[in-house]
Amino acid sequence: MGEFDLIDRFFKRPPHRATVGIGDDCAIWAPSAGHQLALSTDMLVEGRHFLSTVDPVRLGHKALAVNLSDLAACGATPRAFLLSLALPRADEDWLAGFSQGLLALADAHQCELVGGDTTQGPLNISITVMGEVPAGQAILRRGAQAGDDLYVSGHLGDARLALEAFRGRISLPQAVFDAARLRMEAPTPRVALGQALRGTATAMADISDGLLGDLGHILQASGVGAFIDTGRMNRLMASAEQPNNGWTCPPEWALTCMLSGGDDYELVFTAPPCAQSAVQAAALSSQTPVTRIGQITAAPGLVLHDAAGHPLPNTFRSFDHFA
Amino acid sequence: MGEFDLIDRFFKRPPHRATVGIGDDCAIWAPSAGHQLALSTDMLVEGRHFLSTVDPVRLGHKALAVNLSDLAACGATPRAFLLSLALPRADEDWLAGFSQGLLALADAHQCELVGGDTTQGPLNISITVMGEVPAGQAILRRGAQAGDDLYVSGHLGDARLALEAFRGRISLPQAVFDAARLRMEAPTPRVALGQALRGTATAMADISDGLLGDLGHILQASGVGAFIDTGRMNRLMASAEQPNNGWTCPPEWALTCMLSGGDDYELVFTAPPCAQSAVQAAALSSQTPVTRIGQITAAPGLVLHDAAGHPLPNTFRSFDHFA
Repeated sequence: MGEFDLIDRFFKRPPHRATVGIGDDCAIWAPSAGHQLALSTDMLVEGRHFLSTVDPVRLGHKALAVNLSDLAACGATPRAFLLSLALPRADEDWLAGFSQGLLALADAHQCELVGGDTTQGPLNISITVMGEVPAGQAILRRGAQAGDDLYVSGHLGDARLALEAFRGRISLPQAVFDAARLRMEAPTPRVALGQALRGTATAMADISDGLLGDLGHILQASGVGAFIDTGRMNRLMASAEQPNNGWTCPPEWALTCMLSGGDDYELVFTAPPCAQSAVQAAALSSQTPVTRIGQITAAPGLVLHDAAGHPLPNTFRSFDHFA
Repeated sequence: MGEFDLIDRFFKRPPHRATVGIGDDCAIWAPSAGHQLALSTDMLVEGRHFLSTVDPVRLGHKALAVNLSDLAACGATPRAFLLSLALPRADEDWLAGFSQGLLALADAHQCELVGGDTTQGPLNISITVMGEVPAGQAILRRGAQAGDDLYVSGHLGDARLALEAFRGRISLPQAVFDAARLRMEAPTPRVALGQALRGTATAMADISDGLLGDLGHILQASGVGAFIDTGRMNRLMASAEQPNNGWTCPPEWALTCMLSGGDDYELVFTAPPCAQSAVQAAALSSQTPVTRIGQITAAPGLVLHDAAGHPLPNTFRSFDHFA
């Protein structure tokens, strides 16, 4: 199987919305009238972002999901993507699974594969996504105001919990491990919630490096601080909610996983108190749980409180590839 | 040096034309009114696309150049790009050189770095470029007509000659080697020529896998054949033109390098005979040499002639990463 056979067999489909798709030097495409492009790119490296044993269907899903999550964080609607793939060899079983997981998620979001590149090399998946937003309506990191409520979507900490179990640092009941592993290997990008929050959220980011790190980007860009009431985060770890599993995550693990775990692909966002019902409406219309966990403050810095309102020392670190 | 310091120090500059550049979840950007986007992506892997000993300034140049070459092949004007970088470690000297070469070429083409991703891993450079073309004017592979003249830009075969010298399969005088190596390590994307050929060329592709392979894409997409008069290609290898070097490339090497060498980043294009003066005007305005090497035929297949008009057996193969 040669390079072009590989593309034809696993990735090429007739262009849908694009004028020219796979098979020319460039894809040709235009956003809708009155819209701006939202562009993002994420690279996944074997052994760094995923284990070599991962199911290729889940990996295909995740490779696109982490990119769609960036579009969600700006309130953009996914439209098209490009895939660059370095492969040690052309393994047909692996490619069939990978393309299946990738294209199923792409179809679910009507996000068209319009081009890419394949080469031999250590396994590396690099995707660039394009979405569109009505001009001037992208939700950026820089709009948080003192007094705004602070929210997170969905669940936090499960991917890190699964990673720690893979590393042998914590032992989990099978049902908890399976639930956490699914969150790590097949995250759900919060695309519908992101779009529903246009006009409501004042600032937003996706949580890829850990809540504290990604919230830190919002605080820095907006020139504000925040406090988090960790008592409100008690039920945010999905894997700890398996019915009747009789297991409780040790509190020190739970806080570490939720505050600095990373790989969550949830949204952290801010909105003024007068927008609480609009936030709830966005959560309902997108069928995505949303939890208010704190508030934006004029004073810079991030303060953590425990459930009793006492300050917690912030010893949590977000993920940095070169730290 | 952490991940975000690395980005700030070597890659982040104030947004120019983009509404939002590096530092949010997405870049926000829109093509000019009445234009379509041209999108392309290329991934470069150490040991596969470049030697580990290459000067990082040249590598930064080449990583963007091969992407700009795809825009050139559609007649698009470069506007913005995203860079994903997997690095074994944050080597400041390497990063300084790489970003210098990359951003110098970007500035020369007013092509803005609007986002990216950095991670740890085996050295891998993945760039996605965006250009724009007036709606409907992109030059595609599928427009070649029987009777059209067949042209190539610039010089062919030098990158392959340098590679063969690196491999020890051919011995070159120093001046020839230096000239060939420069073409391999710092190719010139033919952006101005590509744009100048809008409305004139009927089909175009860039030559990255070798002339015969990339011309083959045009023939297949257009449903036509071609013949090439190799006698017209005598002076196409730049490194064989060093003044007074007293060296002549052995003819069998010259043809292999020019026909199937690859890594040339020249343009191969077709235009009707009535457009010969328009092609020459485009060559002049873009200061890019152009050579007419053959013709498009209604009969499928590719026929090679030697200088005396005799058929040559076509035993040349283009590059395939998985063949």
